[in-house]
Amino acid sequence: MQPQGKLHGIFTPNIVPLDSRGDIHEGELRRYVDWLIAKGVHGLYPNGSTGEFTRFTAEERIRIMAIITDQVRGRVPVLAGAAEANVKETLRACEAYHEMGATAVAIVAPFYYKLSPRAVYAYFKEIADNTPIDVTLYNIPLFASPIDVPTVRRLADECDKVIGIKDSSGDIPHMIRMIQAIRPNRPDFSFMTGWDAALMPMLLVGCDGGTNASSGVVPELTRKLYELTMSLKLDEARQLQYDLVTLFDTMLYSAEFPDGFRAAVKLRGFDTGVGRQPISTEQQADLATLSNTLQCMLASHGYTDEPIGGCRLPGQSPETEEVSLIVQSVLAELKIRGLN
Amino acid sequence: MQPQGKLHGIFTPNIVPLDSRGDIHEGELRRYVDWLIAKGVHGLYPNGSTGEFTRFTAEERIRIMAIITDQVRGRVPVLAGAAEANVKETLRACEAYHEMGATAVAIVAPFYYKLSPRAVYAYFKEIADNTPIDVTLYNIPLFASPIDVPTVRRLADECDKVIGIKDSSGDIPHMIRMIQAIRPNRPDFSFMTGWDAALMPMLLVGCDGGTNASSGVVPELTRKLYELTMSLKLDEARQLQYDLVTLFDTMLYSAEFPDGFRAAVKLRGFDTGVGRQPISTEQQADLATLSNTLQCMLASHGYTDEPIGGCRLPGQSPETEEVSLIVQSVLAELKIRGLN
Amino acid sequence: MQPQGKLHGIFTPNIVPLDSRGDIHEGELRRYVDWLIAKGVHGLYPNGSTGEFTRFTAEERIRIMAIITDQVRGRVPVLAGAAEANVKETLRACEAYHEMGATAVAIVAPFYYKLSPRAVYAYFKEIADNTPIDVTLYNIPLFASPIDVPTVRRLADECDKVIGIKDSSGDIPHMIRMIQAIRPNRPDFSFMTGWDAALMPMLLVGCDGGTNASSGVVPELTRKLYELTMSLKLDEARQLQYDLVTLFDTMLYSAEFPDGFRAAVKLRGFDTGVGRQPISTEQQADLATLSNTLQCMLASHGYTDEPIGGCRLPGQSPETEEVSLIVQSVLAELKIRGLN
Amino acid sequence: MQPQGKLHGIFTPNIVPLDSRGDIHEGELRRYVDWLIAKGVHGLYPNGSTGEFTRFTAEERIRIMAIITDQVRGRVPVLAGAAEANVKETLRACEAYHEMGATAVAIVAPFYYKLSPRAVYAYFKEIADNTPIDVTLYNIPLFASPIDVPTVRRLADECDKVIGIKDSSGDIPHMIRMIQAIRPNRPDFSFMTGWDAALMPMLLVGCDGGTNASSGVVPELTRKLYELTMSLKLDEARQLQYDLVTLFDTMLYSAEFPDGFRAAVKLRGFDTGVGRQPISTEQQADLATLSNTLQCMLASHGYTDEPIGGCRLPGQSPETEEVSLIVQSVLAELKIRGLN
Repeated sequence: MQPQGKLHGIFTPNIVPLDSRGDIHEGELRRYVDWLIAKGVHGLYPNGSTGEFTRFTAEERIRIMAIITDQVRGRVPVLAGAAEANVKETLRACEAYHEMGATAVAIVAPFYYKLSPRAVYAYFKEIADNTPIDVTLYNIPLFASPIDVPTVRRLADECDKVIGIKDSSGDIPHMIRMIQAIRPNRPDFSFMTGWDAALMPMLLVGCDGGTNASSGVVPELTRKLYELTMSLKLDEARQLQYDLVTLFDTMLYSAEFPDGFRAAVKLRGFDTGVGRQPISTEQQADLATLSNTLQCMLASHGYTDEPIGGCRLPGQSPETEEVSLIVQSVLAELKIRGLN
Repeated sequence: MQPQGKLHGIFTPNIVPLDSRGDIHEGELRRYVDWLIAKGVHGLYPNGSTGEFTRFTAEERIRIMAIITDQVRGRVPVLAGAAEANVKETLRACEAYHEMGATAVAIVAPFYYKLSPRAVYAYFKEIADNTPIDVTLYNIPLFASPIDVPTVRRLADECDKVIGIKDSSGDIPHMIRMIQAIRPNRPDFSFMTGWDAALMPMLLVGCDGGTNASSGVVPELTRKLYELTMSLKLDEARQLQYDLVTLFDTMLYSAEFPDGFRAAVKLRGFDTGVGRQPISTEQQADLATLSNTLQCMLASHGYTDEPIGGCRLPGQSPETEEVSLIVQSVLAELKIRGLN
Repeated sequence: MQPQGKLHGIFTPNIVPLDSRGDIHEGELRRYVDWLIAKGVHGLYPNGSTGEFTRFTAEERIRIMAIITDQVRGRVPVLAGAAEANVKETLRACEAYHEMGATAVAIVAPFYYKLSPRAVYAYFKEIADNTPIDVTLYNIPLFASPIDVPTVRRLADECDKVIGIKDSSGDIPHMIRMIQAIRPNRPDFSFMTGWDAALMPMLLVGCDGGTNASSGVVPELTRKLYELTMSLKLDEARQLQYDLVTLFDTMLYSAEFPDGFRAAVKLRGFDTGVGRQPISTEQQADLATLSNTLQCMLASHGYTDEPIGGCRLPGQSPETEEVSLIVQSVLAELKIRGLN
Repeated sequence: MQPQGKLHGIFTPNIVPLDSRGDIHEGELRRYVDWLIAKGVHGLYPNGSTGEFTRFTAEERIRIMAIITDQVRGRVPVLAGAAEANVKETLRACEAYHEMGATAVAIVAPFYYKLSPRAVYAYFKEIADNTPIDVTLYNIPLFASPIDVPTVRRLADECDKVIGIKDSSGDIPHMIRMIQAIRPNRPDFSFMTGWDAALMPMLLVGCDGGTNASSGVVPELTRKLYELTMSLKLDEARQLQYDLVTLFDTMLYSAEFPDGFRAAVKLRGFDTGVGRQPISTEQQADLATLSNTLQCMLASHGYTDEPIGGCRLPGQSPETEEVSLIVQSVLAELKIRGLN
């Protein structure tokens, strides 16, 4: 269905393992990349939100990409997060990633300041007119200035270098509106969802794939969900999507993002280290509880062993209950805020 | 798939035709009800948000239900909006609608004041413990206090009289979370979406049906979309869903709700009259433009004739462009507000 | 400073005492009105948000006003909340309250549906053109469609019957913008704040007074704060304003609104009864804790006796701590939601 | 009233003039600093939001501070924005600014990711425990994770190095709650408002001063407003505050922040250059219109000459009307979003 070369499938916005001093743990990062490819992810997406790009220095972001492209060696496409302090620095990163052999870059809309649609357009236009590498827009209204449909359309119409969008809004009618507005003129344009909890229905309404943090934890599951959905085995797909919602919610809402994903990758056998954002003593305890719950979830799918203390039946473990309560309360709060 | 008697399919939250004095136009309402049933809607839902229940007096709401149940005469189930000023008045309405033969009532969460989940629970518990008729919860966080997943679950667990939820959030992961939390213990519990722009994917993740304002305008289309989706003819269904998004957005976002739907029902041949909420002269002009655009949309599906001036090709009519701009700007604003 | 007849000073949006069956407790309501006037409130404002106008029937709202105007007998101005289901019903209420001798009506912007500024304008214009009694706009964006500055200005310019605004946004720059836009052309237009936590600074930037729920609990304090502020005794006023913030926050955020105010009025010696919105068993326990805390606060100002168990020093009572925690958590949540 | 050394008065969060290549224009920056001090600002605050800290590289931020401290040479206190990619980098900046002789640093709460209060606490605690220089918290919920009252209190109680807060919420009850919670134990703690539109009432409820972007444009006006308010000449102060609201709104809401401030500083005679965020052709035209309007505003206060085409009476210039419309529409939108 996809035109040749069009971005599709499940890309992993990978976390970056850190060593005991908080520096990039190159060995584990290389080992993690190999494992992800072996487990079937279609591509990698370093320096995304899950990759905590804002918490690394400009030099570190370059080094992360260098390690990954060197390790991947063309086995899968690499979509490089390239947002820097301003357009000049961003273009410099585009050039560097182009030389490293990245497939395309992904650039988040300007953040901190909340920009109008006109300024969001001007920003991407300036980049698209000067970049040597294809650009994927990255819409994540929870964290950055939103990129609205007319802006995506205008950029798609005017800029050949803009070849797709990663949308993390999780809003299905919004995705439909984008596809309707852009696909007729740009059949090569790629629509990727960043909201794991809606992966199956997003694919069913026409998305080309996803860049999903969960795929860094359970690449087997997201790959299988993608394939079941694309081949319309919907009863099986639905059950997997339900499981993914539970796992995703647990990782996303019971710790500061992306610490839940970092903890889960550790359970898959990688020395991910401690995140760079300090957390309180209480939060460390919560993270231990979360890790136990996640281990039981992963074990129930056969992805890891049960924790030493064992796992009770679903819904019965006190840790699971506690985590579930945290998740529900965060979700309720976000819902009220209109953030989810 | 559905247990016997479980609410399912497409219910129409019907508007109420008004006469030249702004009173209920009984004749047109009866004719409209017959037409909806003839066109294949699975049920009716009077006194909902589309039915502008807050703009009628308590006596008028009773009369609307009396007319409709008398006209329906059991041909399709009737879900009666029964929210009144307080629990005592609401229970009085429940009794009246029970006697009229309504299938169930739908009760929106308390509005104006923003209540906590605990108070939302207490409100529905008090009703469920005293109602003679089954109750459907109505979650519409855009207008009323949200009903969160733990609250729905608690009510489903404790109250046999609570038999379903109409959820107008349009949030698919939220729907999945509800189904996961409640369906195992209450397979009879019905999940209906009120967000037309996500009808197909909602059904695909497990919803039983929808109460969709669009079905009051294009009952043929929503019925067909329902059937194509349930029988997994997804390529056809997807195209219909795309068309429905365009039509729904146009009716929803280019006029004060529900005036766009009132204008569209008029195009199907009913004397719907003028809404009770006064509108400015500018808004009246916008509504005329909208009506022309809607007529072209409906004509392109064969539901009505083209307007006298004819319709240009899609995207070329100045009126269509204008309406499209209004829709996009409202959508952008709502997105930023977190309201959509 | 105020033109003759201009609304000014502190108006009490009074709660309505209920008897054991949940009906209007006429005797207590009359006694409460006398007490408020004796304690120095400048006016009364029945059927406002604190008065839970949405939880009474249309007939009950009329009866509340009849009791109050009969009891007041012209001693203080009465501002009557007159919002009904639609314009026709609202105008009917305006006529009734005019005949009862109300000074003016206050009409909240349309709620439930979120209307655009153009529709908000059309609504008030239709009312202003047909009302026999002066109208105060009531802006409470937390609960109803917001009334923006251009709309207030347009209504003030076009409608002599619109004589003021009650603004419960608590946003001081917004108040300044309104006064700047309207006072030059309409020096008779009254600006009243409904946000007790900002009463002193609102008066200092130019407000004429307030309609403050706290004045139904501590009319002595709000009267004194008004007078100290207007006579620029700011060190004393500031301390009172600080105390009022604590008391207001406690009543507002530790129970469903307006149950905290209902509980506090009871402590001043009135049989206020139980509110009409059902509350859970946990919430009833919280309300008892809150009542104890409020009693200590009121006792520290000499407005009531200490509870039987006595009051510890400020900040030391476990109940106070618990209430304080609830308040802080609600405040934090609201702040994030952008609702406060 | 202030303890010795406590931060107080009006600090300027200065913009950074850029040369024709978009680099730091050192000469103009030095000349601008001298002018600000000569016009009476109490202190400087480089690398704040107005200073577009996120659009400079880490090296540039250091260089900006080096230029400013070298130029100031102790004439006024310098509060240095020191937020970097992570705690380690932030502490490195703290050390550099300490060596340069900064009075204190100001650190914005973590942004992009939305952190919980516990994580915000942990972040500042880690910094406060390791910094060689005093720290001012910077709360700007519009752009970054909010810092709630219990978190400020906990940090004030536990960390002597935390000596104040700059709060840009503009929420007066919030400011009162902070002062109530912290001042009793920490009389040395400084409360500075970042919301120019509420400067006078903020000072009247107990703030120590402000860090106000407007003071970079009209330092004479903000200084005078501060002094009139502190000496309780409220009628004069109120009029100045009203004028400041108009000017502030115009600069803030009619262009992407902080381009309106950059344009206004240019009118005071500085070659500020073009901002680093690209803007569309339409936006450039809007900025020219805005500049004309601002020039008329500044001319009416005697701060600059009228533009060549002259200024009509207030409210009559088409440009002014256009700018006013933009301002009102943005304000209305923000109000609905709950962002203002």
